[in-house]
Amino acid sequence: MRTAIATVSLSGSLTEKLTAAARAGFDGVEIFENDLLASPLSPEEIRARCADLGLTIDLYQPMRDIEAVPADEFERNLRRARHKFELMRRLGADTVLVCSSVHPLAEDDDALAAAQLHGLADLAQDFGIRVAYEALAWGRHVSTYDHAWRIVEAADHPALGTCLDSFHILARGSDPKGIEDIPGEKIFFLQLADAPLMAMDVLQWSRHYRCFPGQGGFDLAGLVRHVRAAGYQGPLSLEVFNDVFRQAEAGPTAVDAHRSLLMLQEAAGLAALPEPVVPTGVAFTELVTPDAEPVAALLGALGFARTARHRSKPVDLWRQGEARVLVNTGPAARRDGTQLAAIGLESPDPAGAARRAEALLAPVLPRRRAPQDVALDAVAAPDGTELFFCATDRPELPSWTDDFRPVPHAEPARHLQRVDHLALTQPWHQFDEAALFHRTVLGLPARESVDVADPYGLFRSRPVSNADGSVRIALSVGPAPTDDAARAQHIALTTDDVVAAARAFRAAGGRLLAVPANYHDDLAARFEFADGELETYRELGILYDRDADGVFRHCYTETVGRVFFEIVQRDGGYRGYGAQNAPVRLAAQHGRRPVG
Amino acid sequence: MRTAIATVSLSGSLTEKLTAAARAGFDGVEIFENDLLASPLSPEEIRARCADLGLTIDLYQPMRDIEAVPADEFERNLRRARHKFELMRRLGADTVLVCSSVHPLAEDDDALAAAQLHGLADLAQDFGIRVAYEALAWGRHVSTYDHAWRIVEAADHPALGTCLDSFHILARGSDPKGIEDIPGEKIFFLQLADAPLMAMDVLQWSRHYRCFPGQGGFDLAGLVRHVRAAGYQGPLSLEVFNDVFRQAEAGPTAVDAHRSLLMLQEAAGLAALPEPVVPTGVAFTELVTPDAEPVAALLGALGFARTARHRSKPVDLWRQGEARVLVNTGPAARRDGTQLAAIGLESPDPAGAARRAEALLAPVLPRRRAPQDVALDAVAAPDGTELFFCATDRPELPSWTDDFRPVPHAEPARHLQRVDHLALTQPWHQFDEAALFHRTVLGLPARESVDVADPYGLFRSRPVSNADGSVRIALSVGPAPTDDAARAQHIALTTDDVVAAARAFRAAGGRLLAVPANYHDDLAARFEFADGELETYRELGILYDRDADGVFRHCYTETVGRVFFEIVQRDGGYRGYGAQNAPVRLAAQHGRRPVG
Repeated sequence: MRTAIATVSLSGSLTEKLTAAARAGFDGVEIFENDLLASPLSPEEIRARCADLGLTIDLYQPMRDIEAVPADEFERNLRRARHKFELMRRLGADTVLVCSSVHPLAEDDDALAAAQLHGLADLAQDFGIRVAYEALAWGRHVSTYDHAWRIVEAADHPALGTCLDSFHILARGSDPKGIEDIPGEKIFFLQLADAPLMAMDVLQWSRHYRCFPGQGGFDLAGLVRHVRAAGYQGPLSLEVFNDVFRQAEAGPTAVDAHRSLLMLQEAAGLAALPEPVVPTGVAFTELVTPDAEPVAALLGALGFARTARHRSKPVDLWRQGEARVLVNTGPAARRDGTQLAAIGLESPDPAGAARRAEALLAPVLPRRRAPQDVALDAVAAPDGTELFFCATDRPELPSWTDDFRPVPHAEPARHLQRVDHLALTQPWHQFDEAALFHRTVLGLPARESVDVADPYGLFRSRPVSNADGSVRIALSVGPAPTDDAARAQHIALTTDDVVAAARAFRAAGGRLLAVPANYHDDLAARFEFADGELETYRELGILYDRDADGVFRHCYTETVGRVFFEIVQRDGGYRGYGAQNAPVRLAAQHGRRPVG
Repeated sequence: MRTAIATVSLSGSLTEKLTAAARAGFDGVEIFENDLLASPLSPEEIRARCADLGLTIDLYQPMRDIEAVPADEFERNLRRARHKFELMRRLGADTVLVCSSVHPLAEDDDALAAAQLHGLADLAQDFGIRVAYEALAWGRHVSTYDHAWRIVEAADHPALGTCLDSFHILARGSDPKGIEDIPGEKIFFLQLADAPLMAMDVLQWSRHYRCFPGQGGFDLAGLVRHVRAAGYQGPLSLEVFNDVFRQAEAGPTAVDAHRSLLMLQEAAGLAALPEPVVPTGVAFTELVTPDAEPVAALLGALGFARTARHRSKPVDLWRQGEARVLVNTGPAARRDGTQLAAIGLESPDPAGAARRAEALLAPVLPRRRAPQDVALDAVAAPDGTELFFCATDRPELPSWTDDFRPVPHAEPARHLQRVDHLALTQPWHQFDEAALFHRTVLGLPARESVDVADPYGLFRSRPVSNADGSVRIALSVGPAPTDDAARAQHIALTTDDVVAAARAFRAAGGRLLAVPANYHDDLAARFEFADGELETYRELGILYDRDADGVFRHCYTETVGRVFFEIVQRDGGYRGYGAQNAPVRLAAQHGRRPVG
């Protein structure tokens, strides 16, 4: 189906918005009146700009409080409408949105509403314009889609139809099945927005918290199926009022938006995309660093051994058990210290995974490699992390490890087995996008967000993972955009004996994050421990959590650049991440400066 | 009355919070458990730090879900309580808060709740601790203060009393009059928080949107009067969960908090402060600039004349009608360009105004002056703007103008009469504080906030003014902390003929902000104009608004540094600020770079 987006969903000047929408692949736009009023371009120039960009102007909404009003008020409305229809003719827009009246003088009189809408449609018809009447969830007398449709039906004018808006329908809990009773050709337009399920005033909810399909709690695929079953042929158009999107860069927001519509069409059975290929493990993580020394010291103390070196790039492979860390000191190393730049995801079908990612608008990364290097499929996640779809030592596929030549090395230790999870702090404006990206592009469903108190603001954290937990990523977002620069990343590694692993790390010269004694005193109040057990945790700075399924023990290394490591031991079926302990960890980290 | 604040209301480490609370003048603190757990200080060290700072520890709240639970659960609770009472003994805290249970197994059984609270109080008594039981608004079975009190009364234990929390009482719409039926000595504690009136889930409302008294919509003075009438002798203690305060600097937040309690005591008739002295006009505005040329050119084109110069500082006085602008090129001029650094408020009693400001914790500015200069009373507003309380040419008081010596000058024009309003963008974390400051310290009540769409995010704007509108300040806040650096300020000047004033400005070489033609096309749709009127507005870039009371016409100069001017003509009783036009103005300004 054709796709469109309302300019109010993006930030910037009108031309910035149009450019972003076109680049992201939208077919059309709804122009929000304030964007036009504030633009130095004339309507004709806007029309030409859209044409150059390959965008149609699918909707304009310059009027409110049109119908069911006193006669003199309606006369003024018609006068205003005539001006606006002139403008739309210059703009080349042929559908006007009219929302149900919230005018204090509006009467609860469907016949009057129908008669006045008929009058408006008469005028519109003279300009070749269609009027799409929509029920606002907080309309004074008309607040449901079926009520709006009854008025349109009664008015019975060829230039009058209805506009459906998923937010207004689903926020009120209306059953969208009744949409199938509306003739498809009388559904002039479909506006889509999702929203997190919130118990709050519906107008505030609508104006500030809408989000793109798949980022909230509404069943938009179900709604779209009903609209298609009714015979609707128009575009799927996003109208999303969101305080965060208003501030974010228009380009990435438009891509996020268009991806959400691709996903929605797949979910509603309207489009086929390459099948998801769910990763089955973490093949490697790659740290880029301007100075390998502090990272090497940390990996060495953790028991990793430098086992191989890339044959054409300054990249070392460190290994312990199934955990592999690449340390890259090449030109990719940015100035702001050590960071986690790439993740290798073990994939049953690397090429298929990349095809799906590309179809869902993930930026495909250029393959910078020497002629003999293995071709790797890689895309960028919303936070810029490079994701490689890999095969590791599987005979039927080329292995990324073929690019590495063994170097003489001591045996790695056996304390740590594999990556338990990766924790990545996201840019402030892209948290919802990140969750949708990981779910739809990578096939990693998201769990619920949790709030975590940092000494300087609230963090939100949301884990995504595959079914068996062999790929787990904890996405989090800091309290405000200013913290973007200090975004922390960490790599959690599994052990079957956290005490032994911690002791070995210390014995090798590693420094664990110091945990306050008050924390362990509190553990004594909350849980019962075997003799000496708590004293060991206290000595080593091991944190503890327990739920109905099992026990979680973990400790943290010092931070190098933006990166630190966590050693975790899961016993029983514990599936969490120790979120309860995160405030203590964050406070302890604020008390220390990173090294390296 | 004694004052206290919960550490959760402030940002930072525990010791940063304690220091900020003590500096702001609080007598005590409630220590939030997570702050203690995350602190490297032992309980004894925290106790000593508080003693050094002159703070008592008035409350600790380490326990949840204590009462009305199955017997084995209660046994575990008592075990945990014993640990926590030990800790409180080390800490020197003698009151523990127990909130009504939200445990899924809690029973709706007041007798059981009373019996278990009695058991807890028995244990507490052994440690010299009092238990204060509070109804959470979302408590599973106990959610109102009178219900909590009935259980306390039934338990009948000397170490058990109730804690009242204004949020939980007023958010549910309970009538606080019934508080007077509780014996004062059984009210062990009083927690205060205000909140904006919002229709949303009460738990989310409580955890994220609480604010300091006077910044929300609750009648806290009325509640405090009832609590005092009951005979309560304990502290007034702020417990405010707020996402913004969590990020803001602790020092200013603590001052804002303590000011709110001073105001609350005045409003409740519990404390006398120096009387408010409402300013009666704007005596001057002062621009500091590293280069006077662009400002001088702008003032000259506006029709101001440079009439005098300060006798000991590099400050020029520019004048037209009753509007006076000081241009200061002295050492106060900061590097980041021209800005509005000070406002002279015409005051009936400058010394009295300063006394009130000082009593309400406004930083009193040092009087940097030469021996012969007039002594001026000045304080800093939350955004750093210097506020001078002035007398202008009143025989009974020294006039600030006595410091200025006339210089030869041409007559100023007569287009502009006086300052209509000043518009100051506030730091992101201090918007609510600014409104409370202007209301309480300066006696300028605030009107409702309005949202204004900027191309890159939503602004909130909130005007404060005196009764006759001779002092009007529009406070606004940008969409995110990152915009703090670009905070715009403007000075609006009144004219009785905006067209003549705009033409004269242009003729003198001034440049007005260009307004898009689309805006004026829209005016034609919305209003009817006399022949040629709209064309004049279009030519000059004049914006227009009309309401039931009158008409508002205004236009904008280019921006110099952070400052621009507005020329406004008010006709009839129009009292607004043309907020409807602000998005157009903001978009036009984004399209231009400031000069100077």
